[in-house]
Amino acid sequence: MTRRDPKRDPLTYTDAGVDTAAGEKAVELIKEHVRSTFRPEVIGDVGGFGGLFAFPGDRFGDPVLVASTDGVGTKAVVAQLAGRYGTIGIDCVAMSVDDVAANGAEPLFFLDYISVGKLVPETIDEIVGGVADGCRRAGCALLGGEMSEHGGVMEPGEFDLVGFAVGAVERSRALPADVQPGDAIVGLASGGLRCNGYSLARRALLDVDGRDLDGPAWAGARHSLADELLRPSVVYAPSMLELRRHVDVHAYAHVTGGGIAGNLARVLPDHCDAVVRRNAWERPRIFAEVQAAGAVTDTEMEEVFNLGLGMLAVVPGDAANPALEAVRSAGHEAWVVGEITAGRGHAQMG
Amino acid sequence: MTRRDPKRDPLTYTDAGVDTAAGEKAVELIKEHVRSTFRPEVIGDVGGFGGLFAFPGDRFGDPVLVASTDGVGTKAVVAQLAGRYGTIGIDCVAMSVDDVAANGAEPLFFLDYISVGKLVPETIDEIVGGVADGCRRAGCALLGGEMSEHGGVMEPGEFDLVGFAVGAVERSRALPADVQPGDAIVGLASGGLRCNGYSLARRALLDVDGRDLDGPAWAGARHSLADELLRPSVVYAPSMLELRRHVDVHAYAHVTGGGIAGNLARVLPDHCDAVVRRNAWERPRIFAEVQAAGAVTDTEMEEVFNLGLGMLAVVPGDAANPALEAVRSAGHEAWVVGEITAGRGHAQMG
Repeated sequence: MTRRDPKRDPLTYTDAGVDTAAGEKAVELIKEHVRSTFRPEVIGDVGGFGGLFAFPGDRFGDPVLVASTDGVGTKAVVAQLAGRYGTIGIDCVAMSVDDVAANGAEPLFFLDYISVGKLVPETIDEIVGGVADGCRRAGCALLGGEMSEHGGVMEPGEFDLVGFAVGAVERSRALPADVQPGDAIVGLASGGLRCNGYSLARRALLDVDGRDLDGPAWAGARHSLADELLRPSVVYAPSMLELRRHVDVHAYAHVTGGGIAGNLARVLPDHCDAVVRRNAWERPRIFAEVQAAGAVTDTEMEEVFNLGLGMLAVVPGDAANPALEAVRSAGHEAWVVGEITAGRGHAQMG
Repeated sequence: MTRRDPKRDPLTYTDAGVDTAAGEKAVELIKEHVRSTFRPEVIGDVGGFGGLFAFPGDRFGDPVLVASTDGVGTKAVVAQLAGRYGTIGIDCVAMSVDDVAANGAEPLFFLDYISVGKLVPETIDEIVGGVADGCRRAGCALLGGEMSEHGGVMEPGEFDLVGFAVGAVERSRALPADVQPGDAIVGLASGGLRCNGYSLARRALLDVDGRDLDGPAWAGARHSLADELLRPSVVYAPSMLELRRHVDVHAYAHVTGGGIAGNLARVLPDHCDAVVRRNAWERPRIFAEVQAAGAVTDTEMEEVFNLGLGMLAVVPGDAANPALEAVRSAGHEAWVVGEITAGRGHAQMG
């Protein structure tokens, strides 16, 4: 309990840890980032009570809105420790828009929520710059957002970043649909962890193994561990829409918490199993580093990390090769990593 | 740096502060809460990559989607200190859906994001129970959500709660519209702080004045300070839609950070001023308690708190009385608190 003489010393909001002037400065700084994402459907400008988006109803007969929310988890801690805030916003967008795209929908708009211990306008500017970059990659508008200063609750440099995405799809085109025995599973490459497993990765690499974020990612690496752990998540959404123009995609599984099998199981009908072959793709080095540093079991690795496949597409068996070509043309490495068999709704690694 | 023998002691995700079993249990617990909010437009059930909502396109000629995000700020700290998590979700819904309704839109769906230091399924159940309660009050579906465990970053009992709402409005009915000199300002009662100013209120009441959350709210009060500070935010949205069926509302201003004048200014055209008369409504006692405890200036109080008016409606002058009647019939105390004059876009208290 702080003892003060209230008559001499009136308490202000700033004293209490909320600097509204810093908030206003941050809003000014981010405006151009936000506007850089505007699609023609956005109505008005930054600053209303809500963001307005003209729904392109004439493009749909029976439209379905698809919404998802996710955060960046404790990847935010790595950004804070490294003092590098410029790409975590890309991660935040990727998590939500790729969920939306997994349902077959085109991402329309995105909103972000940033909580901070101390509001530093330049840091907010850097974070929102990354969010806007992610939105441009996803082709969606950054329609709104909120900053919230939690002085005294969060540490001054601490922050959390949460995103919300909304997309639309014609009802008859929503996914998953028609997953069946004989389908092939195409895996889209992820060069790193995306946003999952950071509590375990940090604990293994930084705490247990005592590595330095500024040191090399591993023996002989030319990039730092910070570079590796802050590698921005791929935004798959545009390539996922593009792939459907070439082949009849039956399902997408976004590989987040729960890993490859855990997320694949979410799109399986009761009469199908899925098997993914462990050696069918190149596993990026970082996963072996985490596993060795923490003596993490194979099972735990498979349940926590994407292991190099950030998105799975389920396509008809005879469309596997055209799908590979289309995904590679869209700029992603990809492999046929498994198949759908008759079964009971189970997915496993084999 | 923790020293371990990795060969004897493999590191797990649970060791690192993420208990996936607790997460799965929490998901089971909350399912019924979530389903209790489902409108006919909701497609599918809990557990997909995104939430799906059939857009009621036939109800609109030129639909506009309106989206907003907000958190509960450090009101979460009061809930944590009091160990009472059952109503903070109502606050979270109110913040976002009333922003959506301020643009004239009907809230369609809501998503929540909960971050916690340690995931306790029963606490999540209580929080999401409140979110579902808020969604039922707002008439919107709880379409999705996310829980994220930030072990080692947030304290075990610490949590943050963020919400995201989407609504729809016919383009020609979006607000604000036609605010003009001669309009009246109707204030809708808020019994307490809603979600704004909690850093200042906590600092003044708990830290400076040393009050106890379990003690009386003020001398002679029959309810505790925790009861007072956890008073759920009114969800105005349904009454705001109802009011428009009776009178021609020109604008709504949701009184959040920035206070009455600050938020009213957001809906003023350049050729109008607004004045709100300080003595036109009953100010709930809690605001005087905060002000006295922290010797907070009048100006600071007016910039930080809603002071008892959570929502303002701008209506034609001759519609002021019918508006009052309609709002009161909808269950809210209300007053004519000011008017719009010719001016230059400024709002002030007078």
